[in-house]
Amino acid sequence: MEYRKIKDQDKDGGAIVDDIENPRGKPLLSVPNMASLGGSPSERSKWKRKSIVTLALTFLTSSQAILIVWSKRAGKYEYSVTTANFLVEALKCALSLAALVRIWRKEGVTDDNRLSTTWDEVSVYPIPAALYLIKNLLQYYIFAYVDAPGYQILKNLNIISTGVLYQIILKKKLSEIQWAAFVLLCAGCTTAQLNSSSDRVLQTPLQGWVMAIVMALLSGFAGVYTEAIIKKRPSRNINVQNFWLYVCGMGFNAIAILIQDFDAVANKGFFHGYSLITTLMILNHALSGIAVSMVMKYADNIVKVYSTSVAMLLTAVVSVFLFGFHLSLAFFLGSTVVSVSVYLHSIGKVQR
Amino acid sequence: MEYRKIKDQDKDGGAIVDDIENPRGKPLLSVPNMASLGGSPSERSKWKRKSIVTLALTFLTSSQAILIVWSKRAGKYEYSVTTANFLVEALKCALSLAALVRIWRKEGVTDDNRLSTTWDEVSVYPIPAALYLIKNLLQYYIFAYVDAPGYQILKNLNIISTGVLYQIILKKKLSEIQWAAFVLLCAGCTTAQLNSSSDRVLQTPLQGWVMAIVMALLSGFAGVYTEAIIKKRPSRNINVQNFWLYVCGMGFNAIAILIQDFDAVANKGFFHGYSLITTLMILNHALSGIAVSMVMKYADNIVKVYSTSVAMLLTAVVSVFLFGFHLSLAFFLGSTVVSVSVYLHSIGKVQR
Repeated sequence: MEYRKIKDQDKDGGAIVDDIENPRGKPLLSVPNMASLGGSPSERSKWKRKSIVTLALTFLTSSQAILIVWSKRAGKYEYSVTTANFLVEALKCALSLAALVRIWRKEGVTDDNRLSTTWDEVSVYPIPAALYLIKNLLQYYIFAYVDAPGYQILKNLNIISTGVLYQIILKKKLSEIQWAAFVLLCAGCTTAQLNSSSDRVLQTPLQGWVMAIVMALLSGFAGVYTEAIIKKRPSRNINVQNFWLYVCGMGFNAIAILIQDFDAVANKGFFHGYSLITTLMILNHALSGIAVSMVMKYADNIVKVYSTSVAMLLTAVVSVFLFGFHLSLAFFLGSTVVSVSVYLHSIGKVQR
Repeated sequence: MEYRKIKDQDKDGGAIVDDIENPRGKPLLSVPNMASLGGSPSERSKWKRKSIVTLALTFLTSSQAILIVWSKRAGKYEYSVTTANFLVEALKCALSLAALVRIWRKEGVTDDNRLSTTWDEVSVYPIPAALYLIKNLLQYYIFAYVDAPGYQILKNLNIISTGVLYQIILKKKLSEIQWAAFVLLCAGCTTAQLNSSSDRVLQTPLQGWVMAIVMALLSGFAGVYTEAIIKKRPSRNINVQNFWLYVCGMGFNAIAILIQDFDAVANKGFFHGYSLITTLMILNHALSGIAVSMVMKYADNIVKVYSTSVAMLLTAVVSVFLFGFHLSLAFFLGSTVVSVSVYLHSIGKVQR
């Protein structure tokens, strides 16, 4: 149960990017048709777009965590997580294709928006999906060394690994103040999650630490690498890039079904245990994937990390009203540190 | 017991400033004879002096807390805290006088180092001592609303109140980054002190919060006001200023003995319950007072707050080796935040 929760929460980290309009043609999230925006819009409209996609990601990530709490309250959910992950990829793939069809009708097929691709372009696409698969498989083994709440705490190492890899791979330098802010974000998020059993994580054996660090690096690398792929060909239509990324995602999730849930699917069926809430969660994950993609395209991994961290805090506050949760002193202190971190990040301009 | 600990820990906050050589004529803490240093030394020697007094304060504050833990381990100490406080003031007064005698012999009596004073100069001297007395009396009442560990946590409000009053009274502006660092220092220190019962502090009734804030303001005001007094007359010998400040401190501590411990002193005697450790603590408090004074003179209240906060963390680390304490995850997180705060303070240059 606890494990399922973790896997599900992780899913947004594993979501391969997407940038799409919804199939009915209305722009999603009140953002103007991004795909058809050509040239370089003014700084102001860039900033506006960046803000909207960031808020959308924050909102979707929050509601995702709330759906998880709701589903836990509603009782056990006995569906196969791997099949749900596969469906999320498939749904995003379909949405990418639908958006592309609309663009083709409007603008015609061009070199930038045609679906056919080259080996040179597409050869790197399986890498993020493969990294996530390895990370998800490692998850089975880390629980030999760390309990589930401890793993939640160790997952905050993702923040640091993303910052380090962002700087190394994308060669974008964070300023000293922004690095300080990033360390604070990690410390603040961890503080906000502290509870009476948190100290157990300090007893984690060396193997557990090594695995947690490896998993953080895999997750950070996958995120940063996806950003690099999307940004490498600026004129290429994002929906095409996403389509191929999602095809890879579907492939690797199919492998995950075979490895982890083959028996369950063979005996009980693919959709066994699905409910309304399962459907809502799949929909939410697909939309979160879209938001992650937009943040990758119009902002970067750093903004994504801030967005999902703030979402974690928002979820806790909303849970007070929805589920009568109590906020701890540690939560208030962690939130203060995260708020200062966001402020410092914004004043510590990026040095490039 | 717990209450005594708190009163004692508070004592360093209540210590009225002193700047002195030890009576044998050797300079204390390897600092050259400050009192006889005339004119304006170079920036480098100023920085060196500032560093030495800050390290001395940090070291003395740490050892103070360790003495408190040691005394708790050694068993109950049943002396009157007010008499010990009085003796600390008296000892510092004597040390000021001894330093002055030495200066008079060396340099002769001048306008700046003569003990006689004017009403205009000395009229503000009782104010810090009076503020500390009021604060110490309030301490008796706040325990109706907050338990002792909760009060330890609320005491971190001192950090914020010192920053606010420093800016208002001394008209020295902290930069935005330094303000962010100050908020982090408060959050980090509180996080480092978190334990399983800390959440009870959130149930503090409004009266408790108001009293805690009033006490933080009194403590902050007393500290900042002392700095203002010392710095108002730059040419006046610091030992003379301290002598009069300590005379006031002795007076107000005598009042405290009458209010709080008159019966105990009358029945059991002034030195009832004194032990080796009591003597060491009095000595330590007197030396801490000297260090606080030096920090006030050569640095400021902000440096003092950082120094005592870092001392709190050092104490915990040293206690691991001395007393086999275990450090919590909250301690590591709080220490990280405090470290980043110190870094940010140092890079966020003061705007004056």
